Parts: sequence; C-alpha cells; structure tokens
Amino acid sequence: MHRAGPKSEETRGRILTAAMDLFRTRGFEETTMREIAQEAGVALGSAYYYFESKEALVMAFYRQAADDTHQLIVQALFEKKDLPGRIRAVVDVKFRYFAPNRKFLGALFGHAADPEHPLSPFSEETRETRETDIGHFDAALRESGVKIPKELKPHLPRLLWMYQMGLILFWIYDRSPSQKRTGQLIDKSLPLVVNLIKIARFPLLRPIRKMIVDLLDAVYSG
Amino acid sequence: MHRAGPKSEETRGRILTAAMDLFRTRGFEETTMREIAQEAGVALGSAYYYFESKEALVMAFYRQAADDTHQLIVQALFEKKDLPGRIRAVVDVKFRYFAPNRKFLGALFGHAADPEHPLSPFSEETRETRETDIGHFDAALRESGVKIPKELKPHLPRLLWMYQMGLILFWIYDRSPSQKRTGQLIDKSLPLVVNLIKIARFPLLRPIRKMIVDLLDAVYSG
Repeated sequence: MHRAGPKSEETRGRILTAAMDLFRTRGFEETTMREIAQEAGVALGSAYYYFESKEALVMAFYRQAADDTHQLIVQALFEKKDLPGRIRAVVDVKFRYFAPNRKFLGALFGHAADPEHPLSPFSEETRETRETDIGHFDAALRESGVKIPKELKPHLPRLLWMYQMGLILFWIYDRSPSQKRTGQLIDKSLPLVVNLIKIARFPLLRPIRKMIVDLLDAVYSG
Repeated sequence: MHRAGPKSEETRGRILTAAMDLFRTRGFEETTMREIAQEAGVALGSAYYYFESKEALVMAFYRQAADDTHQLIVQALFEKKDLPGRIRAVVDVKFRYFAPNRKFLGALFGHAADPEHPLSPFSEETRETRETDIGHFDAALRESGVKIPKELKPHLPRLLWMYQMGLILFWIYDRSPSQKRTGQLIDKSLPLVVNLIKIARFPLLRPIRKMIVDLLDAVYSG
C-alpha cells in the first residue's frame, strides 16, 4: 500500500507480526491497537499510520497469506500431474500455512458467512485474493488430462473453491487431535469430487449439468 | 420444563415474548436479563427463575418454533404428494415461520457453525429439535413414490436437512428486497436436488453412492 523505503517496510512488517501474535494468543476482539503498538515497539500514531484499524491488519494478513501461498501452490502444482493430486496440493498448502492461525480464523468466522462484512472471504474487499485462489483451482484442472464439459468450465474452479471453504470451515471447529477428522474428510471427499468431475460429461447427466449452470447463474447474478 | 399451573405458564410465555421482542429490535448481545424482566413486567428474580440465561431463552424459542412448525409441516405434507412439492412444503413452513426473526437468527449465526456452542443447530443441546426436523425430510421422502437406493436411505433425510441449512444461511445474508434471491435459489436448486435423488439409483452411479456413504460414515463417526 505505502510506497516506502526498507525502513518503513520493516516497521510495517513488525506491526503486522505483533498484531498477529496478539490476535493468536489473546484473541482478536480482546486486543487493542495500543497493545499492538506497544508489542511492536512503535508509537500508537505510527501503528495507525500503517494500519487504520485492526480490520486493516487482518486484511494485510490475508494479502500476505495470499502472496506466500501463491508461490507454494505454483511449486506444488508443478510436481503433481493427476487431478486428485493437484486439487489436494492446493488444499494442503492452505492447511499447512494456516495451521498456526486456526483458532484466530475461527474467531473471525462469526463474520465469514456475511458477504457484506469486509473480512468475509465472500466480500467485495477480499475479491482479489478470492479470485487468485479460484485461479489455483483453474490451474489444478488444466493439464490434469481430465475433460471438463464446456458449460461447466467457467464454473468448476469456483465450485472447487467452495468445496475448499467447506473443508476449512469443518477444520476450524475440528477438535480431534491434530485435526485428524479433517484429514479423514479430505481423504473421503476428494475421490468423490474427482469422480463427479470425471462423470460430469456423461450424456445421462446433461440435464443435471444444465440445472447446475442455471443455479450458479442465478446465484452469481446478484 | 417447569411443571406449573396456567398462571406460571402465562408468566413464562410473557417473559419469552418480551425477550424475543427485545432480541429482534435491540439485538441479542445488547439486551440484558434486567431489560427482559422489565419489558415482561416481572421481577428480575422471577425472570431468572424461569430462564437461567439469555441462551436458555433462545433455546426455549427454538423448542417453541420446533413445536409450532412441526404441526404446520405435518399439515403441509398431507396436502402434497410429489417429492419436489413435499420437500418445498417442509422448507416453506420454516421460512414463513422464521421470517420475522431473520435478523435475529443472523446475529446468532456467529455461533452456528461451532457444534460445541449450545445454540448451534449442530450441537448436542439442539439434537432433539434437529432430529425432529430431519424426521420431516424422512416423511417428505416416504410416500413420494420415489425409489431411494437402500444404502442412501438412512442418510438422505440428513442430507436434505443440510441442504435446508444451506438455504437458511443464504437467506440470513440475503439483502435483496423480500429476500427474492433466496426464492430464486430454492426455485433453481430444488429441481436439481430432486433429480439427483431420482438418478441416484442408476447402476452407473453405484461407485458414487458408495463414496457418499463412506464419507458420511466418516463424518458422523466422531
């Protein structure tokens, strides 16, 4: 955001790191900008200069995460050729990256389903990171060798992204040791998703394909 | 809960009505037990005698809603013979009943996805009303004349209930006039759901059926 030299880049990074540490350990609602500034060793005014609110800090974390995971996903996709492996690669990078922040993401989840809340993954404000992320599923589908019916092509990456959001939601509230149950959910649901994609082009399922496209057009027209 | 005469039944009902009015107009978090007692015209101790917390009031509202809608659904199912009509009947009763409380339900939604929160529709505490509600979808499927594959039979009512929860989630955040977009979503998704149920028994889809059952067994085993 700020065009700035290395010094101010460093200060900005330090504030963001301090904020995330406090959000993780003390909770998002419970943490104040004053405490963040103190933890980062900067004046309160300086913290506000870089981030106008706690929400702006979360948004910066989202962007940072999007940049970091993008690199990791490009690398992971390079190594996988089959569709299940490629989808799993995208999802695994996300789970590994966000693991230290699972509880913090859970605390934010109260807003997640409301597309008008800026921090929601469905909001206008998070559109850019969302579209990048949907693009990863597009990349996972391409070069997988799986034929996608023409009418589903523009929609399938977004559907896979929704599938991923469902997995993340399950994971946020998964209290099993090391979130073992989320692992099982992925193991069981991914072959199903891949199989559905593979049979989607069968002539028998043409009416179903049409209904899905109609449904998505209606949902996204608003 | 309380075995009580008509007088105390009346007082309990008055407190519940007052609470719901305040939750709707001022918000759940913002309302105190003191204000509820005042609005109901009872002493604070009396309010606490009937309901130990605001959460207990919400739980009582859930139970009341479950009782009321159960009667309406039984009646509505009696009048519909085809599967789409029968599923729609169950869903429509719910939307009509909850319409005045849409925003209040939205405010509660912060907890909804966490199965360990007592007010979540997925919690242990709401199991009874949830099972009753799943039973409505079982009733909708029976006598519809649609053949359900044996292995899906025990799971399908719960899947339809999940579908309904998805619709309700969409509706809570639907800002279109009179929630017109939710209406479109139901119009477009219901034929898809019904068609998927109808083709589910095709031999071609046997592997898919097996994967779905495996997935559900894994998810509900925990």
